[in-house]
Amino acid sequence: LKIKEKHFHSIWKDQEDKFCQIIDQRQLPHKLSIHQLHNSKDVFTAIREMYVRGAPLIGVTAAYGIYLASLHTDSLAELNKVADYLKTARPTAVNLEWAVDLLMEKISEDYDSAQRIALEEANRIRTESIAECKSIGAHGLKIIEEIYKRNPDRPVQILTHCNAGWLACVDYGTATAPMYLAHDAGIPIHVWVDETRPRNQGARITAFELGQHGIPHTLIVDNVGGLLMQQKKVDLAIVGSDRTARNGDVANKIGTYLKALAACDNDVPFYVALPLSTFDLTLDSGVQIPIEERSPTEVETVQGILNGKIEKVKISPEGTPTLNLGFDITPAKFVTGLITNKGTIKANEKEILKLFKQ
Amino acid sequence: LKIKEKHFHSIWKDQEDKFCQIIDQRQLPHKLSIHQLHNSKDVFTAIREMYVRGAPLIGVTAAYGIYLASLHTDSLAELNKVADYLKTARPTAVNLEWAVDLLMEKISEDYDSAQRIALEEANRIRTESIAECKSIGAHGLKIIEEIYKRNPDRPVQILTHCNAGWLACVDYGTATAPMYLAHDAGIPIHVWVDETRPRNQGARITAFELGQHGIPHTLIVDNVGGLLMQQKKVDLAIVGSDRTARNGDVANKIGTYLKALAACDNDVPFYVALPLSTFDLTLDSGVQIPIEERSPTEVETVQGILNGKIEKVKISPEGTPTLNLGFDITPAKFVTGLITNKGTIKANEKEILKLFKQ
Repeated sequence: LKIKEKHFHSIWKDQEDKFCQIIDQRQLPHKLSIHQLHNSKDVFTAIREMYVRGAPLIGVTAAYGIYLASLHTDSLAELNKVADYLKTARPTAVNLEWAVDLLMEKISEDYDSAQRIALEEANRIRTESIAECKSIGAHGLKIIEEIYKRNPDRPVQILTHCNAGWLACVDYGTATAPMYLAHDAGIPIHVWVDETRPRNQGARITAFELGQHGIPHTLIVDNVGGLLMQQKKVDLAIVGSDRTARNGDVANKIGTYLKALAACDNDVPFYVALPLSTFDLTLDSGVQIPIEERSPTEVETVQGILNGKIEKVKISPEGTPTLNLGFDITPAKFVTGLITNKGTIKANEKEILKLFKQ
Repeated sequence: LKIKEKHFHSIWKDQEDKFCQIIDQRQLPHKLSIHQLHNSKDVFTAIREMYVRGAPLIGVTAAYGIYLASLHTDSLAELNKVADYLKTARPTAVNLEWAVDLLMEKISEDYDSAQRIALEEANRIRTESIAECKSIGAHGLKIIEEIYKRNPDRPVQILTHCNAGWLACVDYGTATAPMYLAHDAGIPIHVWVDETRPRNQGARITAFELGQHGIPHTLIVDNVGGLLMQQKKVDLAIVGSDRTARNGDVANKIGTYLKALAACDNDVPFYVALPLSTFDLTLDSGVQIPIEERSPTEVETVQGILNGKIEKVKISPEGTPTLNLGFDITPAKFVTGLITNKGTIKANEKEILKLFKQ
């Protein structure tokens, strides 16, 4: 999608296949900073420190990490070590290990062609991610259209949490793809954007994305969504996922579960949008999904603009013990449907397994 | 309670009854700034701009506002105008109109003694607030004791939202009173402190209060409480209230409803602590309670310390539409009990009316 009328993806190669370029998302919306990744250490840091984030983009970035590593390693054993190292960058998003494992499986069959295979596969995953997101958008569009047909006199009110937008993927996004397609199809929508503490990806990135694309939206703090649902000001919620278990339990950004509870209490449909690569069929249920604990600094301080400079202010008393958990689990029973690139399904094991058999 | 080992109340008079002094809570925890209120305009500003906040403290401050106004007005009609003006400072906390109406009723019976009556009544409300909070503490202590007896090997884990502490009252607090009394009685407790966006009263004030009193606590963002309850890390939740309707529906800081939903989903007892002056028997249910909408600036910016100075950083993109709703309604069915100064009761009309007949 576009930033200041110029078309961007969240990740792209240089023309000579020597390095990758990404948008340093830590500085959005205040600064559009392009950052180069030259080796697996750069990639590890970009994922770990969240220059890039969002399950699909983490997967694509890791795939290029294997490619960049293949340019600098001399044996399969060495490359396997790099692969294991990359997989530890962040624990919750399953797309990371999915992409790394997929590349390493192909490479291990023909190590002599490692560079070519890695590049082809990374390029393929990247291209397919765009197509998958567009497909998620098409399936989600139908849901928005139906709500619009029931109430054609007003915009469809959609709530989203965190950023599952094009900046969390390569293009279109997961949760936002139906919104972009609906807007482009002329269906009036309005999006409630949760700011999403502690890192404010909603306030910083989703508000930025939607604003650049001209989609009406309103920023709210994470505490507000329940009240808006009580007041009948939300027609549906759409969020992304970092990992979804075999039974349909959804790991997503911390606070998602609270919105799902409110949606259930107020009969608001609650959808999760995700590509097939975000399912983890090895896990029976959500309780087995590892929950990332990050630095307390992300909670204690808030980043923003002051006098034209990006600064961090400290909000809590010096020495206050602080816990920073990054994700929570929304039990499948609170999920109205999973909007995947292969269609919208119920969040249960039977439907999920059927999806993979197609 | 204490700040740096020195005993404080949140509001107190000068010795000659000429003005009131308050802690400017907008600057906590970074700066302990004492502010003087000399007339009703000072009081209006202090309430409106949240130098003071919390339903009980707003009530006490407003009562002194009537007293200070009585020093400068020449007729009951003029004083009535001031009373109406003060009542518009903030819409949700019912203690504001409760205190103002109570004083004006007494004054209107004997306007010649307005100054004496106003001072006596304001002093009485202030003193009684301290006693009421202590009584809430005693009733809440029993609940904490019982949980402790069932699991004496570990601290009782309590979650609270916003600040319903001694700085929201005159002393002890409402939601925090049981915590202070439990801690002082030697019962090990640990408090999960929601930061409470947008104004961060949890991160700034509750963490400060508990820290000054030596009560173990951990700061979390508002999104985390649901996950902690799923993980069985919360034994009970206690929050305050700004207004509670006749049927037990509770208006409290925005986000309270989401925690009540999570508590219900995880069988965690959810208590609301409040003095009788926070009930509004004129309202049948919570939907009738006015919800304050405040400036978007409180959402767009976050205040904290940078290089030793209190600063505000802007987190969202320039021009992002933003909505700031201050309170939400927790339906009575999600409230395990109301801890009042007259005892703990179920949140229903029958029990509430019985309380007022005692």
